[in-house]
Amino acid sequence: MVVLKIGGNVINNPATLHEALDYFAGLIEPAVLVHGGGRRASQVITAMGHEPVLIDGRRVTDRATLEIVTMVYAGLLNKDIVAQLQSRGCNAIGLSGADGNAVQATKRPVGKIDYGFAGDVTAVNAALLDALLRLGMQPVLCPITHDHHGQLLNTNADTIATETAVALAGQGHGVRLQYCFELPGVLKDIHDPSSIIPQLTPQHYAALREEGTIAGGMLPKLDNAFRAVDAGATEVVIGGLAELRQGGGTRCVPG
Amino acid sequence: MVVLKIGGNVINNPATLHEALDYFAGLIEPAVLVHGGGRRASQVITAMGHEPVLIDGRRVTDRATLEIVTMVYAGLLNKDIVAQLQSRGCNAIGLSGADGNAVQATKRPVGKIDYGFAGDVTAVNAALLDALLRLGMQPVLCPITHDHHGQLLNTNADTIATETAVALAGQGHGVRLQYCFELPGVLKDIHDPSSIIPQLTPQHYAALREEGTIAGGMLPKLDNAFRAVDAGATEVVIGGLAELRQGGGTRCVPG
Repeated sequence: MVVLKIGGNVINNPATLHEALDYFAGLIEPAVLVHGGGRRASQVITAMGHEPVLIDGRRVTDRATLEIVTMVYAGLLNKDIVAQLQSRGCNAIGLSGADGNAVQATKRPVGKIDYGFAGDVTAVNAALLDALLRLGMQPVLCPITHDHHGQLLNTNADTIATETAVALAGQGHGVRLQYCFELPGVLKDIHDPSSIIPQLTPQHYAALREEGTIAGGMLPKLDNAFRAVDAGATEVVIGGLAELRQGGGTRCVPG
Repeated sequence: MVVLKIGGNVINNPATLHEALDYFAGLIEPAVLVHGGGRRASQVITAMGHEPVLIDGRRVTDRATLEIVTMVYAGLLNKDIVAQLQSRGCNAIGLSGADGNAVQATKRPVGKIDYGFAGDVTAVNAALLDALLRLGMQPVLCPITHDHHGQLLNTNADTIATETAVALAGQGHGVRLQYCFELPGVLKDIHDPSSIIPQLTPQHYAALREEGTIAGGMLPKLDNAFRAVDAGATEVVIGGLAELRQGGGTRCVPG
């Protein structure tokens, strides 16, 4: 199976989104798509007279923001992606975490920062995804989850992809997890797209992190990647669409 | 099986929405919920600086309006309803027409009025609904469909409920179709809530329509109801939640 995560920057550009959907629709294996949010949510937040608040790239989700991200992620983006996939002959079915209890989460505890209605994933319903895949459907997960007590939660899409891959691997499936984003892979030099690190072990990652070569938004992404490696994903790759198509990008492997 | 349609005015009021969800979650039969839009879409359209346009109660759906109703119906309302049902122990799964190709439609031809991206239902995927029900899930349909060529369409929820009941009846299921709205039933005198017509045949309906006793928004609702009666729905009832609970409301029966 394949779990493909497409990030906000892939979604923001209609051309790259369509290429990514071509790629997903063309996969031969049963596949799950997980999509991020993109800048559309911030546009709608602003258009409705609110102020987007992000701390270290993570959105602070008050009640009004939760309503808007639910509209944009679970409504606009998810349904547009599903309709586009359907037109490509891919029998996609869009899901938030609430649908069929696909992804359950808990509201993030308030620490130094109160992220509001942000969800930390507690369980992915692999049996549901399995059943939908057996029915010939390709699940498309948006980054909205629920706590099973009626509360929707805004949730990191990389984490949903990781926990989905982990849950499916736990069911005995061979799972290839692919994070598709705007860069060709994990780079040694962020300004040099040719400096792709083709393969990364946890030890190598720890060293590069220590020396500051890998920093910022790549850290949570790689933490997610190595969690999937540890939990038995067959293959974990980070890269741009062209690299994923050609077997390139950065491969995260066990130590 | 039950197909329950809840209208916009039921959704607009959190108290009546919660009562309707209690009722749906408490149904013993396999059940499909179809929800309308409510005034929330118009609020968001206005908040985003557009002007809601309705002709005879039907929304004119230009491209910006389509995006907003997709956000509100498929995102905000559908996911809130699904999360609320999940919290009641009802394993709801929200679907737009694009999801699993649940409800296919064609863009309404431009006649005297151009309704824009309005969809006329062409097919309900009863096999999908059947499969989800067999998996122990309760489908929750929002009034957004697709044309299978990548275009989402704004679609009348009464029609979706009717065509869902017709499609399930066509699969050999006994189907009870219930339209839940803000009135206790079809009324002889719109100003007298006690003037419920308990039973209506097509002949009786034609006569009341002729004399003007039934008019306005009740006409498309009753046309939908009698289409389901004709197509073999076991029971078709229109009423308020209290009446549906108690076996009251207006029962549409064959002539």
